[in-house]
Amino acid sequence: MKTTTVKGTSDYLPSETALRDAMQKDILETYRAAGYEHILTPAIEDAENLDKSDGGDNLNLIFKILKRGNKLEETLAAGDYAHLCDMGLRYDLTLPLCRYYANNRASLASPFKAIQMDRVYRAERPQKGRMREFMQCDIDILGDASAAAEIDLIVTTAAALKKLGIGEFRIRVSDRRILRSVLSSLGFPAEELDTVCVSYDKLDKIGAEGVLAELVDKGIGSSVVEAFRRFAEQQPKTPGEALTFGADPEAVASVSGIIDAANELSDGSWEAVFDISLVRGQGYYTGTVFEVESQRFRGAVAGGGRYDRLVGKFIGEDVPAVGFSIGFERIYGILKEQGASVKGPRPRAVVFFQGTSPADVLPAQRTAASLRDSWDVTVASLPKKLGKALSRFAERGFSAYMIAGQDTELRELR
Amino acid sequence: MKTTTVKGTSDYLPSETALRDAMQKDILETYRAAGYEHILTPAIEDAENLDKSDGGDNLNLIFKILKRGNKLEETLAAGDYAHLCDMGLRYDLTLPLCRYYANNRASLASPFKAIQMDRVYRAERPQKGRMREFMQCDIDILGDASAAAEIDLIVTTAAALKKLGIGEFRIRVSDRRILRSVLSSLGFPAEELDTVCVSYDKLDKIGAEGVLAELVDKGIGSSVVEAFRRFAEQQPKTPGEALTFGADPEAVASVSGIIDAANELSDGSWEAVFDISLVRGQGYYTGTVFEVESQRFRGAVAGGGRYDRLVGKFIGEDVPAVGFSIGFERIYGILKEQGASVKGPRPRAVVFFQGTSPADVLPAQRTAASLRDSWDVTVASLPKKLGKALSRFAERGFSAYMIAGQDTELRELR
Repeated sequence: MKTTTVKGTSDYLPSETALRDAMQKDILETYRAAGYEHILTPAIEDAENLDKSDGGDNLNLIFKILKRGNKLEETLAAGDYAHLCDMGLRYDLTLPLCRYYANNRASLASPFKAIQMDRVYRAERPQKGRMREFMQCDIDILGDASAAAEIDLIVTTAAALKKLGIGEFRIRVSDRRILRSVLSSLGFPAEELDTVCVSYDKLDKIGAEGVLAELVDKGIGSSVVEAFRRFAEQQPKTPGEALTFGADPEAVASVSGIIDAANELSDGSWEAVFDISLVRGQGYYTGTVFEVESQRFRGAVAGGGRYDRLVGKFIGEDVPAVGFSIGFERIYGILKEQGASVKGPRPRAVVFFQGTSPADVLPAQRTAASLRDSWDVTVASLPKKLGKALSRFAERGFSAYMIAGQDTELRELR
Repeated sequence: MKTTTVKGTSDYLPSETALRDAMQKDILETYRAAGYEHILTPAIEDAENLDKSDGGDNLNLIFKILKRGNKLEETLAAGDYAHLCDMGLRYDLTLPLCRYYANNRASLASPFKAIQMDRVYRAERPQKGRMREFMQCDIDILGDASAAAEIDLIVTTAAALKKLGIGEFRIRVSDRRILRSVLSSLGFPAEELDTVCVSYDKLDKIGAEGVLAELVDKGIGSSVVEAFRRFAEQQPKTPGEALTFGADPEAVASVSGIIDAANELSDGSWEAVFDISLVRGQGYYTGTVFEVESQRFRGAVAGGGRYDRLVGKFIGEDVPAVGFSIGFERIYGILKEQGASVKGPRPRAVVFFQGTSPADVLPAQRTAASLRDSWDVTVASLPKKLGKALSRFAERGFSAYMIAGQDTELRELR
């Protein structure tokens, strides 16, 4: 049988699990302190829900679960290979949250401030730092159309990132409506806005020339591409400057207000900045989008945005919604590389027993139980080479030991 | 789009999630206090590993994940419908643990005392209390062939169950070798022992007559069934009595030692008892098996056993192993029915802001931040009907509020 994990997934050693647990605890405590409530949804969702969810490129990365029994036989007999599955693994926590809200809203506060910390699945081409099974840590506010929601998410996410110790960071903020209105003004036809946004989003990765080349490839007319080149060269640095390129004034005012308020609330370790080129991949975003970059952690460590029309797909009535997701795996990967290690909340000790019969363990078990008010205590058979064994316990973070029936109290372990 | 969860899975409201989180915290702390180490494995495993894993009936309940792209097309083109999937969702945490141990043993302590608390998946026919996605909370000891391992698992699991508040309970203990040796002595042929054990395991559910009828249906000879009837009528109540029916003396001594030691270590709220009829469903158990029954919680709330040959399937060399799993969902379901509710570790407050512009939230956000050393504080827009809103906050567990820019300190909320 195969001993490795399946492609794109990972085992975590005790020390790695301790780091992940400590990170999750920090994040969860910060979110709770800001009044968000933890919820749980299944990792499995209806396949059609996933397929129709406006998840952008992620829709091509869904793991599907094979039908079973008669259902499968009937589908195979009919040669209906497009419907071999009726369920799939979720690719993010936002679609499940919208379904959850639709399913439970009578029992939820309004606005509803949700915490989700859970696994999601994407059939990515595996590469360093890109997993097929990975953790997402999200906060979302449903039922609040005002900028107060964005501000709350920004300061709460910033507090969590700070607690994780990622150093200084910048929060890039835009509003999808700004880039779309500018592109319209430049002469792009409405039906091409989405694809142009997708190209523009790659500015960081492929540079301005790369973006222009993609637009030409996509068959965009040369005069429009030329107008786009001038815009890209003088890319507006503030929401106000975007106005001169024909940006939607309402979206400009919204983003300005959010950025100014966020910066007022910053403790100086982070700042919010306008970045018109920010698009974000998900198809469901409708307004504000944000992304956090850290110098020390190169690249994005968190991202999110407003998705006012996703809940409406479930209940036929739009509910304003906005969320912010921490790139847990990225931060975990870098902290681990930097040698971060975590001690448990309590000191660890080992109590040894001598002998091999069941009755021989009793004194050690009783002593261990009596120490557990303040220690994590393991019971172990007294090894032949005690010194060597003690060194290994010390390496694993144990700080004391005793031999039951021989020692009367714990001895320090160095 | 569908708003309900897929069959056999569940959404959890904030109050339900708080109960589950508190239960997990209690269990994890108890396990850690006994020196076990938390690890993580993927929810997805190789399909062949799952299929070959001796999981008993669970092997018929595996959710398989459809191949993708070229691999899927080739399989369909070849009409090879038995191999549409190369991965599946794990049905328990024991098989993944054995794979994990084989994959990582150079980095693990020996013996290795593992904690796993995670989701597993089984395509069960949905019914009350039986989920298709559910939590398992397991501790396992790998690399210890002695009864010290069983004793450690029993007292640690008992401590966790006690912390969960399930009241008095009994731990039924047996050794698969005992029933098998007795059945051999009664005249059952070696190749029928497994199927007879499976029938006998249903004694609780279908009664002695039901078991006998099943044996007849299975074509067992009438003289053997008759011998079995006499055995069942005088079912041995102690390991010693089992000896008179031809039980394996080594297994009898082992179970006796474990039961006696466990009872010595009990605080009186639970006891370990011998039950020769205990088999447990998994095919991979090789020796000791245990199951916890609670009067208040009718039925099994935990179970486990020794599986000395499962790791060997991965590394070609057997490693002694034994584990104990808490029936998390069963206990959660009953605690919830009994109206258990959990308060967070810190009191909750709400700070209201007045106005609708982004700048209006600043005083409330600043006040909230200043309170978060000792409070969980949410920021909310001042509602028109304050009294009604405050009642709802109180219902949700909030105990204080203030209006930013108006109040100078928190007011009590009743």
